[in-house]
Amino acid sequence: MRVRKKKWTTTELSTNERVITDNELQKGKWNEYFNNNNPIYLEIGCGKGRFITKTAELNPNINFVAIERQKHVICSATRKAKEENINNIAFMIADIKDLSLFFNENELSRIYINFCDPWENKKKWAKRRLTHVNFLDVYKTLLINNGEIFFKTDNKSLFEFSLNQFCERDWKLRNICLDLLNSDFEGNIMTEYEEKFSGRGMNIHRLEAINRK
Amino acid sequence: MRVRKKKWTTTELSTNERVITDNELQKGKWNEYFNNNNPIYLEIGCGKGRFITKTAELNPNINFVAIERQKHVICSATRKAKEENINNIAFMIADIKDLSLFFNENELSRIYINFCDPWENKKKWAKRRLTHVNFLDVYKTLLINNGEIFFKTDNKSLFEFSLNQFCERDWKLRNICLDLLNSDFEGNIMTEYEEKFSGRGMNIHRLEAINRK
Repeated sequence: MRVRKKKWTTTELSTNERVITDNELQKGKWNEYFNNNNPIYLEIGCGKGRFITKTAELNPNINFVAIERQKHVICSATRKAKEENINNIAFMIADIKDLSLFFNENELSRIYINFCDPWENKKKWAKRRLTHVNFLDVYKTLLINNGEIFFKTDNKSLFEFSLNQFCERDWKLRNICLDLLNSDFEGNIMTEYEEKFSGRGMNIHRLEAINRK
Repeated sequence: MRVRKKKWTTTELSTNERVITDNELQKGKWNEYFNNNNPIYLEIGCGKGRFITKTAELNPNINFVAIERQKHVICSATRKAKEENINNIAFMIADIKDLSLFFNENELSRIYINFCDPWENKKKWAKRRLTHVNFLDVYKTLLINNGEIFFKTDNKSLFEFSLNQFCERDWKLRNICLDLLNSDFEGNIMTEYEEKFSGRGMNIHRLEAINRK
């Protein structure tokens, strides 16, 4: 069953033209790929793609790249984009640790990190959190000056950790929100996870971090 | 009863040598007052003084000034300091809005703000919050470069508001904590309010903000 699912996923992904087949080939050439000079926004860990496809649909003058490690998960995302005929988005099956192989310095204008794994209660795993300073330093390089990170999580400890990591590296923070659904914030686009749990009292934290080079 | 209480308070305060009688006279002369060149730390709204007297006792090489608007409240604080024979502390009955009348530029090294009034749910009252940018700009002037604000509150909305205000004015933040009692933070000295409610599940937020001139 597992093998059949895998086969089917691989076939579907390989025939979807929005899926990048050789990740490293695009480095420094994303504007060529999209055939325009629009800014490039990246989502790290797009999951089933609800957030990024809706965001791309609402922002036709931005190019979006969505990275996800799990093939069978990203497959839902690529299908959504194909069905909706959204052309300002590309998908990559890749690991975040290889990020600097896929983008040049100053090639990105914004990065979205939504509900990433908190790697909770394990200090030794702090380095795996996507907002650890080691990752922030990579994002800093790939983002333009004044480029942004938009970060959401329902995990209070991860949010606290992230605030401190951003401050340690002197990112400028704004729109910090400790309870998104009861805030004045407008235009929130929910991920699948967020939509599922937001009705059950899940408290969502959000921030925007500005890159200072 | 109210008048008798007032009379008694006024008498006690006027005979306690740790209480400043002419607030504006000390401006620029705090080191003369304390008769040493130790750094000066200020607590805004010291209440009954548990926090500041304990802190002063533990830090004999720092001079402390505690401001409180309400006479009958500060009276408990002054009594504590007198009974414990704590001499590195002075008390002022004063309103925070007059702060710049009492201190010179660069005269303070640290400011403590503990559990101040959140002025909740009233946008028009945001300017009264002690972490509003208008107040931060006064603190910035009175604090030395790299001087600090240590801020604690149990009010999530006020903490969120404060984070954004500090970031707006580009203070450097560190040790941000969204749940102080369940954190690794050591050496927390509780206020009366904090001690009373901390056992009842009150969630305490804390941050340190560094002044950048």
